[in-house]
Parts: sequence; structure tokens; C-alpha cells
Amino acid sequence: MTEQLTKIQSWLNDNELDVAYFSDFHSIAYLTGFESDPIERVLALIVFPQDEPFIFAPALEVEAVKGAGWTHPVYGYQDHEQPYQMIANYIKQHTTHATKWAVEKAQMTLDRAALLETAVPEAKFVADLSPLMTEMHLIKTPDEIAKMHKAGDDADRAFEFAFAALQEGVSELQVMAKLEYDLKSMGVVGMSFETLVQFGAHAAEPHGDTGSTLLKAGDLALFDLGTIYDGYVSDATRTVAYKSVSDHQRDVYNVVLEAQLAAQSQAKPGMTAGELDAIARDIITKAGYGEYFVHRLGHGIGSSVHESIQIATGNDLILQPGMAFSIEPGIYIPGDLGIRIEDSVVMTETGADSFTHSSKELRIID
Amino acid sequence: MTEQLTKIQSWLNDNELDVAYFSDFHSIAYLTGFESDPIERVLALIVFPQDEPFIFAPALEVEAVKGAGWTHPVYGYQDHEQPYQMIANYIKQHTTHATKWAVEKAQMTLDRAALLETAVPEAKFVADLSPLMTEMHLIKTPDEIAKMHKAGDDADRAFEFAFAALQEGVSELQVMAKLEYDLKSMGVVGMSFETLVQFGAHAAEPHGDTGSTLLKAGDLALFDLGTIYDGYVSDATRTVAYKSVSDHQRDVYNVVLEAQLAAQSQAKPGMTAGELDAIARDIITKAGYGEYFVHRLGHGIGSSVHESIQIATGNDLILQPGMAFSIEPGIYIPGDLGIRIEDSVVMTETGADSFTHSSKELRIID
Repeated sequence: MTEQLTKIQSWLNDNELDVAYFSDFHSIAYLTGFESDPIERVLALIVFPQDEPFIFAPALEVEAVKGAGWTHPVYGYQDHEQPYQMIANYIKQHTTHATKWAVEKAQMTLDRAALLETAVPEAKFVADLSPLMTEMHLIKTPDEIAKMHKAGDDADRAFEFAFAALQEGVSELQVMAKLEYDLKSMGVVGMSFETLVQFGAHAAEPHGDTGSTLLKAGDLALFDLGTIYDGYVSDATRTVAYKSVSDHQRDVYNVVLEAQLAAQSQAKPGMTAGELDAIARDIITKAGYGEYFVHRLGHGIGSSVHESIQIATGNDLILQPGMAFSIEPGIYIPGDLGIRIEDSVVMTETGADSFTHSSKELRIID
Repeated sequence: MTEQLTKIQSWLNDNELDVAYFSDFHSIAYLTGFESDPIERVLALIVFPQDEPFIFAPALEVEAVKGAGWTHPVYGYQDHEQPYQMIANYIKQHTTHATKWAVEKAQMTLDRAALLETAVPEAKFVADLSPLMTEMHLIKTPDEIAKMHKAGDDADRAFEFAFAALQEGVSELQVMAKLEYDLKSMGVVGMSFETLVQFGAHAAEPHGDTGSTLLKAGDLALFDLGTIYDGYVSDATRTVAYKSVSDHQRDVYNVVLEAQLAAQSQAKPGMTAGELDAIARDIITKAGYGEYFVHRLGHGIGSSVHESIQIATGNDLILQPGMAFSIEPGIYIPGDLGIRIEDSVVMTETGADSFTHSSKELRIID
């Protein structure tokens, strides 16, 4: 039994619950070491307060579950079988009492909940595992932090590949393709999200896509990217100038830079997430660009770039050692330019330690 | 009002419902033309039987919604605001009666359902939009089919890039990186799922990952890949031999090929999905490899590779013109080899029309 699974058992005992039903593959990876996205198929980890846990998986994943070191039972199902009825039967084989359930309410959909309730009519979904998993994910172990530093090193390499791929008339998609090729050629297994490359005014759409905009002298080029290392991810952003930079571009860049550096250097344990957001936001607002900073300062990061921490206005969450999150102020002036600078960091006893180290001073790429 | 939205309004009227609440971004893209994955943020399309519909989106997406041609109201929220309370208020501005709701039960999670119920205490989720959307997605329009043919053309190109990248000692990841680079360089915007490249015995794991296995003479190499064209996707698989092929490899290959060709040529409207699966499965079973064909024959495809059709044992779904799905038999012998051959097709009045046309005869790459 892993230390994490033992924690789940204790939690079930403390809360007098009969069943913990995990269906988020990130949770299952965290608790068992077996990582696979089942997409529309059914993958579940079922844990009891005393009885032996089991994994229920698509038949074609069963060998991989065993290969990942899982020593408890794993049961497979074929595509034409009824997975929820099978799960109900296996639960009866493992335990005598399955009334009070905890499920992952942030992951379980209404239709799957209904199927499970039909298969196990005595089940009552009285508790939510999602906040517990969020809490377990919140404080990173030294091993997790080490992997995130490795992922950060790859992100730093990605920026060098990206800058080297810039040339007059190249498209955003071409640069994305080239940097991802360079990364994968050196063994990076994948990107942690869709790589964003934006040139000129296109970068004013902070959630736009990498597209067909062509690079021209005098453009700013924005790169927001992340890599995966052994199940942990990086996320960082740099904005550079191509060939030349105007005074206006430099002025706005320096506001974003000042905001980013201030937040990153002043981040301390005990501060709230909202206070950290305010450090960057106040600088941008005082410079007159507050209306153009349209998103939160940062988000949690770990085995995905969507962890729960929100570095956002008014969030009372106390930042603690071991928490990992991004610090990414930006200014987006429609039709003109978009600038964002981002490092992801882990909070230590003394402050924020960054996973990426690429220079944040304004670079002009020739 | 788009034709699709008018259909939703009629359906609400027919079923005497007050509100249709869409939260799956694929559905929103299908109904409005605005496509964006909000990840953990809230994106919703709210449709009423008579009153004007609206989109509720992250503030940073509002301009993109308008840019996609949406002429009804779009309301944005900032990360620090309470989206579900805001949605409740906007609904009150749009309609006087919001009791009987239809929601997407295959997409809405238990925690979001609870937040929505708290914000709109009078709401009863009495109907499920997911089957309706599934049905609307099921029969492709000529425009959708045209886009899927374009995506298929790109998948055919991908195979040529893949074969050209094969050389002694190259890794699966390197080949994946090279073929994706070649595709993106010619303007392909993205892959529709994680590209799978597997060499030798590694291909015996049908849901394994592209990894660090190195290619050697006498290996079979399996490529399962898909591309995105204007929001529609391709999905195809080819398995080729590198340098040489053994009699055993050729024998197994020919069983898979016979199964694939038989299913594809005999697919006809009016047949059930289960009958189509059986055509391929019977051939593999009679050849003695039934236990090694561990997955369904195929799945639906359209704007994603996870559409609802299951070409699987016992499925009574009647295949009809306009349905699109994959035909992908495989044989996976642990420790030995894995072979899969796949085309995705659209059913026509006369039979299956493939989106991909790369040769399926056994190729030996030198």
C-alpha cells in the first residue's frame, strides 16, 4: 500500500465512509503510479477503509496497470460489456458494506453518476474526494519539485529553440512546429498544453491560438509553452522583439517586467494569493494599463497546468511552502500588442523559487 | 439564429422546457461557430424557447466570441467573480420563467451542477441535452464531410512523412516529432490526439505511448495519427515493416488486412454496428487470433475522435448514411508484435467512403 493510499484509508475511517471511488486519471496516477487517460472509457480506483483496493480498467490497459507496479487486483472490461454493473459486482466481492461513498465531484459527470447509482442502488454519494485530492496535490513533495525543475529546464531550452526559429516572414505555426520538433528530438515526451506562438497585434488576444500570422521586423513575439517530464509539467512565457523595438513597446514591456519581478521577488509564505496578485496588478494599474490586464496573475501547476490554486484578486488562500504556481502578468492592447512574462515557481520557506531561468530582460532577436 | 439553434428552440418547445444550458465547448462550437476550450473556466451557451439566447464566457474570450460571428449577447466574467451567480442574474434578464432545465449530463460535473443549483434554486435539471447533441452530431452534413476529407488528405500525407522518417536506430519519439513538424510546416494546425508511433513488440500495447523504443531491421512500425482541419478531425492507422518481414509477421498482417477490408467493403446502411464489428472479428477469430483483438472495431468521429458511435459486439445501432466512424481491427501478441490497420469512413447510400487512401497492402520500408 502506498503512503498516499494509506492516507485515503485513514480519511475514510475518520469520516466513517465505506467507499472512495476515484475516476480522475490524474488522481489515479497520483495514488497508484499508473497514468493513462481512458478518454471515454471507464477507469476507476476503488478504495475501502479496511478491505483491499482494486483498479477497474479497460481490458487493453490491464497489463499496463500491472507493469506500473500495482500489486492489488486489477479487473478489465471489454468494450461491449457493462462496466458499472461489473464494478458493482467487484465491490460486493471486496467488501460487505458499500453505502456511504466519496466520489470526485469535480470530475464525475451527471450521467456517469446516474449509471453508478443504478448499478449500486444502496450507494449514497455523501462526500466529495475532489477537495481532498486538491489538498493532497497542493503541497509538492521534494520528488515532485525535482521533476518540475527538470520540466522547467526543458522549457528554458524551448525558448532558445523558439528564438532561433524566428526569421522574416515565418508563420506562428512554423515556429511552433520547429520548437516542438527540436524539443521532441532531444527526448521531451510532450507539451503540457497547446504551444502558443503569437506575433504582433495577434498577441493582444491572450487566449488566441497559434495561427498563420507572419513575422515582420518590429513585431513583438510571444511564446507561452510548457513541457512534460515524468508526469510533471512546466509553464512559462517570454515575449521578445524581432529586429527592432519602439519606445512604446519598450515602455509597456517594462511595466509588465516590473510587475512580474515585483510579484516573484516579494512572494512569501503567509501572504494570501490575493495579496500576491495585487502586487503585480497595482504596478500595472498605476502605469495606466490596468484595463488591459484581463486575467488572474497565476494558477496552480503540478502534474497538469490546471491545478486549483488561483492567484487572483480577493483570494484568501494562504501561500505555503511546497505550493507551486505561475506568476504571469500581461498587458494586451487590442490591435496593438500583447506582452506577457511568466515563470512558474514553488514557494519555499524564504520565497518563490522559479522552475525556469531564461532571461526576462527585453531581448531583441536579429 | 443559426439553423442548429432554431432546432434547439423547437426541441425546448416540444418538450415544454424553459432553459437549455450548454457547457460542452464542442456543442457550443457546433451551435454557434465559436470554438474554444475554456479548460477550468466557465463557458456556457443558454438557449430559451422564445427569448434571446446568450453566451457567458471568460472576459478574455468575449472579443473572440463576437469575432466568430455571434450576434446575440455575450457576457464576460473576470477570474475573481462568481460566474454561476452572474449566469443566474443574466437568465433573469432574458426570461421570466427558468424552472425546467435541460443540461449536458455527459459533460456537467456534480460540483458544477451543485453550484448552478445553488445560484438558481428554482432550477430542476429534468432533461438531458447530451443525447440530443449526440443525435445532431451523428449525421454529418456535406460541409462537415468535406472538411473530414480534407483532414483525411493530411493524414495520408502524415503517413508518407512518417515512413520517410524511418531509419535504423531512430526512436519512436523522434519519428513522431519529425512527422508532426513536417505536417505543421505545411500548415496543419494540430493533431487530433497524441500521435502514436510504436516499434516492434512495443506495438503489442494498443494503448501504450510513443516512447523511446529504437527502430531495428525486421521490426513492424505502427502509426496511429490524426489531424485537425477547420475543427474536424482525421484518425487512421498504418503498420509497415522496416527492411524485412518474417513469414509470421506477414501472416498476422494479412489476417488484420483481410478483416479490415472485409468490414470496410461490406459496411452498408441498415446494418447494425454489432454486425459490422462481427465481420472483422469473425475473420480474426477464425484465424486463431481472436483473443488478441482486445478492442471494439471502431468509434464515431467528427469534430473529435470521441464521438458516440461504438462499432462493438452486440451494439444494435443501425448504421445510416452520414454517420462517420473508424474501422480499425488489430492483433496484439504480447512480447511479439502489434498490428492495426484503420481508416475512418462516412457511410453513404451505397457503403463506406474512406477519408484516407494510403495503401493498406503490407509495405516494406527500406
